Amino acid sequence: MLDTFIAALDWLGITVFAVTGALVASRKQMDVVGFALLATVTGVGGGTVRDLCLGLVPVFWVEQPAYVAACVAVAVVVFFTAHIPESRYRLLLWLDAAGLSFFCIVGAERALDAGTGPAVAIMMGIVTATIGGVIRDVLGGEIPVVLRKEIYVTAALAGGLAFVGLVVAGVPQLPAAATGFAVCFVVRGAALLRGWSLPVYRPRPGRDPGDLGL
Amino acid sequence: MLDTFIAALDWLGITVFAVTGALVASRKQMDVVGFALLATVTGVGGGTVRDLCLGLVPVFWVEQPAYVAACVAVAVVVFFTAHIPESRYRLLLWLDAAGLSFFCIVGAERALDAGTGPAVAIMMGIVTATIGGVIRDVLGGEIPVVLRKEIYVTAALAGGLAFVGLVVAGVPQLPAAATGFAVCFVVRGAALLRGWSLPVYRPRPGRDPGDLGL
Amino acid sequence: MLDTFIAALDWLGITVFAVTGALVASRKQMDVVGFALLATVTGVGGGTVRDLCLGLVPVFWVEQPAYVAACVAVAVVVFFTAHIPESRYRLLLWLDAAGLSFFCIVGAERALDAGTGPAVAIMMGIVTATIGGVIRDVLGGEIPVVLRKEIYVTAALAGGLAFVGLVVAGVPQLPAAATGFAVCFVVRGAALLRGWSLPVYRPRPGRDPGDLGL
Repeated sequence: MLDTFIAALDWLGITVFAVTGALVASRKQMDVVGFALLATVTGVGGGTVRDLCLGLVPVFWVEQPAYVAACVAVAVVVFFTAHIPESRYRLLLWLDAAGLSFFCIVGAERALDAGTGPAVAIMMGIVTATIGGVIRDVLGGEIPVVLRKEIYVTAALAGGLAFVGLVVAGVPQLPAAATGFAVCFVVRGAALLRGWSLPVYRPRPGRDPGDLGL
Repeated sequence: MLDTFIAALDWLGITVFAVTGALVASRKQMDVVGFALLATVTGVGGGTVRDLCLGLVPVFWVEQPAYVAACVAVAVVVFFTAHIPESRYRLLLWLDAAGLSFFCIVGAERALDAGTGPAVAIMMGIVTATIGGVIRDVLGGEIPVVLRKEIYVTAALAGGLAFVGLVVAGVPQLPAAATGFAVCFVVRGAALLRGWSLPVYRPRPGRDPGDLGL
Repeated sequence: MLDTFIAALDWLGITVFAVTGALVASRKQMDVVGFALLATVTGVGGGTVRDLCLGLVPVFWVEQPAYVAACVAVAVVVFFTAHIPESRYRLLLWLDAAGLSFFCIVGAERALDAGTGPAVAIMMGIVTATIGGVIRDVLGGEIPVVLRKEIYVTAALAGGLAFVGLVVAGVPQLPAAATGFAVCFVVRGAALLRGWSLPVYRPRPGRDPGDLGL
């Protein structure tokens, strides 16, 4: 039951991230193979780095190629339907938010399952949730969403903290995972809707951080 | 005999990719150590990611440092001879095409050898063939060749598909590898000579994909 | 004693690289979570790739989460104090030089310890010393310090060469490590103070390497 639930979150996360990769490909007017490549690296990138760092090799998509097939199928569908949504970038950001929320739980759960402590599990949730999007944006020539001013990594941190905290406190993993997912999605969603952000670093008055000291 | 043949393809791929890395270094007017660094990461980058994902660690160049030595030697030679060719960028693209063709076979063969299924093997061929060039272009500040409009990843896909398809169909690996190499090189070469490309994603008429939804 | 010494170098390297990551975050006016993320990937990035390539998994910070905690703590301190130094970029370059010198020794020592030959050990020193900074600069949108004209990778090469050469020659690891550190720091420091550089590649007279052949 739990395994099924986590596996479902994993599939959902991979699928929505694959869609975001294909949407970036559509913004760059790539061909269908470019769509498949960006969809796949975005969908499986975060989990790959997680598995490598935890020593879980061969990595998950080598063991279960269905993940790669799903990313390719998603890419083909998006190639023929990406003209439908009003704003592809807005859709991309919301799907990315969903993927972030799925993966901060899946990554943390995989790490706990591999025997790490809670701090490393939260870290692995963040790694799993953010790296696919970073690869997507670097390959696609977009500004990495992780560098945008509104809250992003913080949402994955909050979701992972909630999930791992509840598990450590003895709450069963299923409600803990659902809570963690909700926390991450609400925080990131609020950031998207209202531009929520944390206070940023402010240099001394009258000092421009960009070019001093160059 | 087969092992020797695949090993030869591997050495050829590493060498030509090392030359492309050194040529990018020459375009950026680096010093000889910069040449050696870019040549080495380009030459061994794809195979390193392949070995990591398959769980073949330590990775191949840790086991056989001669690969690294070869990349460094190539870099030194290019440092003193890069002024000879008429167009270094044109040369770079053709050597990159050769490396792509060598590596899409070597990567797939290594994966089959490690016991993966055919789909993962083709994927590993693509990973091995493209990641070295991506690292080279990102580090060297060039537009990644993988993002260019003409056919690129598709050639590696076609070569891997031909090779793995023939092997699965019972053809001995040697002619299968030679065929796969030829398929990839011909497809990519035609793309270079004639600008072959697949149909790209087209947004709705009158709609500019670049800035809508930002 | 030796273990303690190498562990101390490792901690010093991680800490100074974490500071450089946080300084880049301050130049980009990120929030405190962005500081923590950039500090952590810069501090542990090089060692992570080293451990992966050597097959030492789970990687070091999964085994000892205190490293991650230290990077986060460093990031918080820098968030509140980065306005103090006159020139943050100058400070960043000097701390980066210190980190480079610590890590070219630590990386080489870890590789020798894992049973590699001297050439691979020097290579691992360079990998460990440079990759954290590359990730930092790519994520932070800075020009990678590894691509700057003055000597950089060469310093890590010189330090690793001195350390591994002395160890192979029978010198105890402690003085060998101290010498290697000094060599790297002096070479890189001289490059920073006096703009030392190696001769760069020169195209034929009257030929501009940047746009010919495009």
